[in-house]
Amino acid sequence: MSDHVRIVEVGPRDGLQNEKAQVATADKIALIDRLTATGLQSIEATSFVSPKWVPQLADAAEVFTGIQRKPGVHYPVLVPNEKGYLRAREVGVEEIAVFSAASEAFNRKNINASIDESLARFAPVMAMAREDGVRVRGYVSTVLGCPYQGEVPLADVVRVARELHAMGCYEVSLGDTIGTGTPGKARAMLAAVAAEVPMQSLAVHFHDTWGQALANILACLEIGVRVVDSSVAGAGGCPYARGASGNVASEDVVYMLHGMGMTTGIDLAELAATGRWLAGLLGRETGSRAGKALAVS
Amino acid sequence: MSDHVRIVEVGPRDGLQNEKAQVATADKIALIDRLTATGLQSIEATSFVSPKWVPQLADAAEVFTGIQRKPGVHYPVLVPNEKGYLRAREVGVEEIAVFSAASEAFNRKNINASIDESLARFAPVMAMAREDGVRVRGYVSTVLGCPYQGEVPLADVVRVARELHAMGCYEVSLGDTIGTGTPGKARAMLAAVAAEVPMQSLAVHFHDTWGQALANILACLEIGVRVVDSSVAGAGGCPYARGASGNVASEDVVYMLHGMGMTTGIDLAELAATGRWLAGLLGRETGSRAGKALAVS
Repeated sequence: MSDHVRIVEVGPRDGLQNEKAQVATADKIALIDRLTATGLQSIEATSFVSPKWVPQLADAAEVFTGIQRKPGVHYPVLVPNEKGYLRAREVGVEEIAVFSAASEAFNRKNINASIDESLARFAPVMAMAREDGVRVRGYVSTVLGCPYQGEVPLADVVRVARELHAMGCYEVSLGDTIGTGTPGKARAMLAAVAAEVPMQSLAVHFHDTWGQALANILACLEIGVRVVDSSVAGAGGCPYARGASGNVASEDVVYMLHGMGMTTGIDLAELAATGRWLAGLLGRETGSRAGKALAVS
Repeated sequence: MSDHVRIVEVGPRDGLQNEKAQVATADKIALIDRLTATGLQSIEATSFVSPKWVPQLADAAEVFTGIQRKPGVHYPVLVPNEKGYLRAREVGVEEIAVFSAASEAFNRKNINASIDESLARFAPVMAMAREDGVRVRGYVSTVLGCPYQGEVPLADVVRVARELHAMGCYEVSLGDTIGTGTPGKARAMLAAVAAEVPMQSLAVHFHDTWGQALANILACLEIGVRVVDSSVAGAGGCPYARGASGNVASEDVVYMLHGMGMTTGIDLAELAATGRWLAGLLGRETGSRAGKALAVS
């Protein structure tokens, strides 16, 4: 089993999207450029959803054209539909991310569609991407619980992941949107999905709302996952429990991986400095414990 | 392997000892009584070190005589020497805790003694305890790193743990005082100690300074440890990195264990409410992510 773990840094998109403080376009560009300089291989840059839904990321095109893209580093952007895809392609996007919840209730509430309808909406996007040679990453959210329906059947998680993979996603990220998962359940969920989608095409995406993210990541590493989503400074919070923690902090993940003798290619000190700088922009303390410890130790 | 985990709640002693805000004696008593009501089996109540060293716990005798001790629940107190032991026994203490660092530099700096001298100082205390039928718990600190010497040889950790056990400690708690440990090292450390001291006589004590505590606990649970030290609300901070996190929050540990289908006998909602009440007394937010999530979800 490889000792290399690829971190998918989601702070500039998943993180900022859920932050109240408006971040200036120039600062978003500086954030991504600083993240590139840390050695990250994948940085989710922004989202081409409608600015009506996510005003924080209305400057997606400016951000994407403003960043210095480093060869070999991937900069996926979130795309909700064909319109978003075309806007993204206009500015030279080469990797996109599409998404569906594993929870029927969440899909209904979020995009007023069933799981099947939500997947069907992406079919034309996938077709265009295939034609254009654009890589597609898939997100499955609510894999360990849903804010609306509670329990999410494992069969639904497996089905959505399998469909996204079959539709052409080179990687499927499994997200515990509300952070209620614990290590045994996280591992069982990953194992069930990995029975149908190759482990090397899977990523895990944990939220630290209940403090469980790092333990869950460990449990999943132990059965072979080697791609982990995380957010510098823990940016993002939790939209379903205001005031609680959200995305696991990239610094804490990288510290754990390096401590375990695994490689990420990331300069932790640079990453932590970037996280503290971002936290300053957001007007609060960094959400990374390792980031805080590095600053005071 | 048993599915029951005993939590040793250290908030009233290890936690408060490292908190700046002075807590009133009546509040300390209320804290311990509330903790008893949650179903905890072990609650470290206070410390009989000299009030000169730890002013926060100068009221040890009043606290211990003020609490409602529930039959079957253990209330260990920290004891540094014979004088402390005698003060503790005067008020009816039935379990004590003694301590040594695994780091030579830490022992020198902290108590101006070598490891061997520090262990020798406890010999008369152990003898009195044996005679009096008093249970003794042993703490080994700096098991995964030292603020003064950095690396701590695993052989020293094993030696100190073995000695404490041989001297009569029914349980030896292995403490990552500065919280720099990661899961692989934590597990290797525990495994090395468990080769010389029975696993059922070992406990783990992790600090969350670098965000690793829960992952480390998971790694140790996986090789059989069933006793975990933790502090309600994450009380305590880190004296070696001011402003950073310290003791792992009991609520986060209990949430993980229950999620994994393990039992603790603890009412998590009561525990979290106690943690938030304590955080209020300390004038800050609870350091427990689960505690925060429970409050807002």
